[in-house]
Amino acid sequence: MPLALPPIPPPDTSAAASARERQATLTKPPGSLGRLEELSIQLAAITGQPRPSVARKAVIVMAGDHGVTGEGVSAYPAEVTPQMVLNFLRGGAAINVLARQAGARVVVVDVGVAADLRPQPGLELRKVARGTQNMARGPAMTRAQVEDAMAVGLQVIEAEATQGLDLVATGDMGIGNTTASAAIVAALTGMPVAHVTGRGTGVDDAGLAHKISVIEHALRVNQPNPRDARDVLSKVGGLEIAGLVGVILGAAARRLPAVIDGFISGAAALVAAELAPEVKPYLIASHLSAEVGHRVVLERLGLRPLLDLNLRLGEGTGAVLAFHLIEAAARIPNEMATFAEAGVSDKE
Amino acid sequence: MPLALPPIPPPDTSAAASARERQATLTKPPGSLGRLEELSIQLAAITGQPRPSVARKAVIVMAGDHGVTGEGVSAYPAEVTPQMVLNFLRGGAAINVLARQAGARVVVVDVGVAADLRPQPGLELRKVARGTQNMARGPAMTRAQVEDAMAVGLQVIEAEATQGLDLVATGDMGIGNTTASAAIVAALTGMPVAHVTGRGTGVDDAGLAHKISVIEHALRVNQPNPRDARDVLSKVGGLEIAGLVGVILGAAARRLPAVIDGFISGAAALVAAELAPEVKPYLIASHLSAEVGHRVVLERLGLRPLLDLNLRLGEGTGAVLAFHLIEAAARIPNEMATFAEAGVSDKE
Repeated sequence: MPLALPPIPPPDTSAAASARERQATLTKPPGSLGRLEELSIQLAAITGQPRPSVARKAVIVMAGDHGVTGEGVSAYPAEVTPQMVLNFLRGGAAINVLARQAGARVVVVDVGVAADLRPQPGLELRKVARGTQNMARGPAMTRAQVEDAMAVGLQVIEAEATQGLDLVATGDMGIGNTTASAAIVAALTGMPVAHVTGRGTGVDDAGLAHKISVIEHALRVNQPNPRDARDVLSKVGGLEIAGLVGVILGAAARRLPAVIDGFISGAAALVAAELAPEVKPYLIASHLSAEVGHRVVLERLGLRPLLDLNLRLGEGTGAVLAFHLIEAAARIPNEMATFAEAGVSDKE
Repeated sequence: MPLALPPIPPPDTSAAASARERQATLTKPPGSLGRLEELSIQLAAITGQPRPSVARKAVIVMAGDHGVTGEGVSAYPAEVTPQMVLNFLRGGAAINVLARQAGARVVVVDVGVAADLRPQPGLELRKVARGTQNMARGPAMTRAQVEDAMAVGLQVIEAEATQGLDLVATGDMGIGNTTASAAIVAALTGMPVAHVTGRGTGVDDAGLAHKISVIEHALRVNQPNPRDARDVLSKVGGLEIAGLVGVILGAAARRLPAVIDGFISGAAALVAAELAPEVKPYLIASHLSAEVGHRVVLERLGLRPLLDLNLRLGEGTGAVLAFHLIEAAARIPNEMATFAEAGVSDKE
């Protein structure tokens, strides 16, 4: 039986209208803060509060391995996944640096790492499987594994929300996961594999050609049904991607803004929106990744990224960078003076 | 006698090379942090330190009035300039909110407000004139006023540097200053006035057409010499713009990264680069403004903006928003673990 997805409420149009009205009273020409103003209105619609705070922030980094790495699709060996998880836990990765700067906590979840990680502070041990199977030879996951990994995401976001959370970023770690993401995006959008497949961590031209042919082969072998996102996810997805689907759906269900990182997180958001289109108003696209397929994902979701910095690291790095802009958007209506308060003459 | 401009040292290529080498050792695929990596290398070249810190930050907001407001070129009355200066000093403006978030101090300089502001904490009273003259009828400033306003900028950045400063943003306040900036940009680049003139704080279609005709008239009346930036500045510029030229040149002379805000700051940077082309490596373009002429300015300077959020407020708001990205770029090489430190396998 498929996992029951939590109901997602509609955005709060009344809170959004209040936020829009407040923007017009602040000591600046109307509209002059551009996308920060739009963001403040979106945050109001999401949270149901005209002037929400986004003080409590977290990035949830889902880690999982990919059987398809056996086909030689990545520039790095699969052992890097658990090594980087340990790096996250010691605070030495890019996501740690950026999260410290943004005042966000880093929640690391082993939802499918192909190595035994010992229990330690900061690590959520929620392994559904030791990596996926090789999608070039058959389905990456069973349907039950997909449901379990999505349930992990829902449970993690629930626990974080209970602890206190205003803003959540999606992050990923998994050698091979641009391959899985490209396969998902090609399957769901019908775009040619070559149009949505990039260099990931940095394969060369021959590596890219090989990666494309592996994905094309995997799609032929598995024949995922483009109208069944769970089927796509199980056949060519990843455990960490399924986990992020759960995080995204769970965030929206709790009226939390879900800040989507790059290509892998984008593939998860695409699946989430297929399963529950009402999730879309809760999504904030943090950045446009250098990974070529990301643009297709954002267009399909109707999202405009906040940043375009040629990032392609994942881990949630772009999403956490965007936290600063989202926090700015939230602070403006709370902290700026109105024309009346400041005694400033309004437009003539 | 023209003001002696401070000598600007060449960027430190050795520090830049060290910064580039360090990026390659950090636990991420090479290049995967995109523009943050480029920024970290630029910061090294600017400061001469392979791993600089940008902990001490300030935005210098130069305020001045414009005689050309008498022609009805702005959506707001000129009295808004001093009113907003008071708003800055009370902490209620957008720049105050964003600077608090970024941990930056706000330095407000009256270099040419057409009202008597009483001495008060946080306000640098350095008035060169009570606003400019109406450029539609003759030169906006004398050459001496231009030199004096530039000297104010040089002195303010010197004082701030002495107090301790790693990163400086340029900000502006002055009703009428998009008109002056458009005139400067048209004069220096030879672009048609209509291509570089926008709606400023929000004039309507008729207001925009009128604004363009006023600028065209001012350029005919004054005939600024496009090969003499001081001449352009005095005839169609502004006191706060000249002040910002001083800030920018002074920052570069002290190896401080100068983070340029939007259109008005961009016009100042254009003048600075005409006076001293060696300033260019010290400039960081924070954002692409919604004001139409800004793109021309950035192209002429060879700068690529970090943000594109449809901002058009000025005050230094876009520059201070970009502080977060610049700080991220600086933190990465200081705080990330290397492959060796973290025991992570490097590329195969």
